[in-house]
Amino acid sequence: MNSDRRQFLKRAALAGVALEGARSASAQTAGDTPDLTWGANPNPFWGAASEHIGGTVERSTPLADIYGIITPSELHFSINHENLTPNINAHKHRLLIHGMVDRPLIFTMEELKRLPSVSRVHYIACGGNSYLGLDSRKNPPKTVLESHGKTSCSEWTGVTLSTLLNAVGVQKGGNWLIAESADVKRHAMSIPLAKAMDDALLVYGQNGGPIRPEQGYPLRLLLPGWEGIRNVKWLRRLQVVDQPYFSRYEVGTYTNVMPDGVRLFLFDAAPGSVITYPSGQHHLPGPGLYNITGLAWSGGGAVHKVEISVDSGRTWKNAQLQEPIFRKAHTRFQMAWKWNGQETVIQSRCTDEKGDIQPTVAELTKIWNVTPDYWQTTTNNIHDFNAVQPWRVDREGNIHNAMFQA
Amino acid sequence: MNSDRRQFLKRAALAGVALEGARSASAQTAGDTPDLTWGANPNPFWGAASEHIGGTVERSTPLADIYGIITPSELHFSINHENLTPNINAHKHRLLIHGMVDRPLIFTMEELKRLPSVSRVHYIACGGNSYLGLDSRKNPPKTVLESHGKTSCSEWTGVTLSTLLNAVGVQKGGNWLIAESADVKRHAMSIPLAKAMDDALLVYGQNGGPIRPEQGYPLRLLLPGWEGIRNVKWLRRLQVVDQPYFSRYEVGTYTNVMPDGVRLFLFDAAPGSVITYPSGQHHLPGPGLYNITGLAWSGGGAVHKVEISVDSGRTWKNAQLQEPIFRKAHTRFQMAWKWNGQETVIQSRCTDEKGDIQPTVAELTKIWNVTPDYWQTTTNNIHDFNAVQPWRVDREGNIHNAMFQA
Repeated sequence: MNSDRRQFLKRAALAGVALEGARSASAQTAGDTPDLTWGANPNPFWGAASEHIGGTVERSTPLADIYGIITPSELHFSINHENLTPNINAHKHRLLIHGMVDRPLIFTMEELKRLPSVSRVHYIACGGNSYLGLDSRKNPPKTVLESHGKTSCSEWTGVTLSTLLNAVGVQKGGNWLIAESADVKRHAMSIPLAKAMDDALLVYGQNGGPIRPEQGYPLRLLLPGWEGIRNVKWLRRLQVVDQPYFSRYEVGTYTNVMPDGVRLFLFDAAPGSVITYPSGQHHLPGPGLYNITGLAWSGGGAVHKVEISVDSGRTWKNAQLQEPIFRKAHTRFQMAWKWNGQETVIQSRCTDEKGDIQPTVAELTKIWNVTPDYWQTTTNNIHDFNAVQPWRVDREGNIHNAMFQA
Repeated sequence: MNSDRRQFLKRAALAGVALEGARSASAQTAGDTPDLTWGANPNPFWGAASEHIGGTVERSTPLADIYGIITPSELHFSINHENLTPNINAHKHRLLIHGMVDRPLIFTMEELKRLPSVSRVHYIACGGNSYLGLDSRKNPPKTVLESHGKTSCSEWTGVTLSTLLNAVGVQKGGNWLIAESADVKRHAMSIPLAKAMDDALLVYGQNGGPIRPEQGYPLRLLLPGWEGIRNVKWLRRLQVVDQPYFSRYEVGTYTNVMPDGVRLFLFDAAPGSVITYPSGQHHLPGPGLYNITGLAWSGGGAVHKVEISVDSGRTWKNAQLQEPIFRKAHTRFQMAWKWNGQETVIQSRCTDEKGDIQPTVAELTKIWNVTPDYWQTTTNNIHDFNAVQPWRVDREGNIHNAMFQA
């Protein structure tokens, strides 16, 4: 390892990056920082939403109650699959990059932080977000937190993975990376080299602060626009290999069983959007003007257009998009709406920069070549379900989830 | 008031905004929210920085320890002038807009939140930031937190003030606004109508969450690029008047006493910047490559260029600016630097989109037409002091504040 370390420092110097002595330089400020512990620490602002804060397993973002495009770090969704958030001492944490490389290297967090940094606004969404899964069929999602709360957006800061891969020198035939977590399960995912060299980041900062423990402190692999499970938290190892490893969550859970076979490796997430106001369990007290707002996103790049229908899907109008629009990030949309007091369905659909259009559930049924009752009867895994979310407004002004009742 | 309220709803409808029944619609979600209380609630992440969290009076941002351009909300600087943060029930809070207007109006927070929203990234800095003031002369700032920690940057969400002023109808001769706080001091500031109609916002959201209590919950006047004291917190009243009111803090404290007279009403803040790594009390363990990074800003608009000198001011090179660059916002810069182990001074200077250049302290001395010892001997107030911050690197690699020792 000492040899690796010397190699690393030498290479870093050649690469024009700033590493010598970075560890002790950083220790000057970081040395006072106690080892981190993290417990229930709800922000008193969040009121009813705080019930979703502080757990170790699952958390959803209250999309109807946040502003702009940044999700407060403490409200970023979290799914741990019964995994516990590890209590990692960042000063002892190491990242190993090895396998089919010329120069395997070990990085301390201090070394990573002394490299040129990049900050980018990106969303992360669970592959299962917005799917009316087995559990939720018995108890269909009532609010937008329940239906779509597994997507969140942050300003992430870290280093580009390509910088590090260039430093270690990927060998011919090294086409995949295995990204491994320091959690007790050693959660691992297979990442194509092309994605790693494109826009992948290793991030240590979230919204100006250190990445939250439940989000992967001290280091997370960020794969913009790819489902959450691939954005490996508590990253400790990257192994360059020739083939994917078909790890537990890439064959067992996060796959789509289709009529024509199993789809593995769901990468760029499809375009999605949801109206967050008014949404499930909101109440409109009477006819009049309302400001419809919501969030859109796409793993395919920037949101190009969001259309809103307020007449049960008969007509659609372009919503106003809040600028700047970041690629693979939440994009806020708004539109004024005059409600006449009659029952109707309101919904939004996203078109991304590639021209991909978010389908209605009826359209998705055709695309997947399944029967209309498939979504509610299958025992297969369903991921990347991105159907338009219809909200039904009744005559009393109450808002209901109409995904399967429209 | 009922008449005003009816007028407001009528006008809002005419203006195409979404107000009818907004209060009860919002209460559906907001009703569960308890009245807010705020105490010491440090984020366990912040370690040594947490000593600056939780007080009611003063707080600085640890600029050397934050990432990207967003300042975590709980680390936003705060100066209250012995004022206590009021404990405001947002559901009872009201904003009154009156004076020289056609239709005085009262807004609830729910009504404001139902208007079309805008989110913008802006910095706020204290007019006294980076000035070696009376207190700090005895104990000169050692770290960048102490020297420049009174600037912070957030994604703010709210409504444009121009929208509301158009709704009330400003009468001829109404050239100023008096913005009044709900704090016990009734802190008030005079704002030219032109600024109010330009880019002023009334904000209720900060980095995706509700604005923090010490930052003005539930409503703050945001005047991008203007010194902090004018960004009135806990905003409860806007009165359109014909002349400025010369309130306590615009005549008594936040003024510059110059050789040729007193300068009142310091508006667009001058361009500024500071190297945050390496900065005061950091330690470089040996010669080699380092990644210099820091933050720049200007009340005049976007940061156009940041230059770095690593040879005591003899030569300057352009730093890399992190994109996107927002107007009147922190802008992160970086540059690789090979330290040869010799004593030197490193420093940064900002040029904004108007071409205004951050001066060295020697240049500022000439601009202000004062003697070199003025900065350390005057008992006058000094604001908008934006001199280049020199950091001296000694042969042992220790970094020192060289503002007045260079």
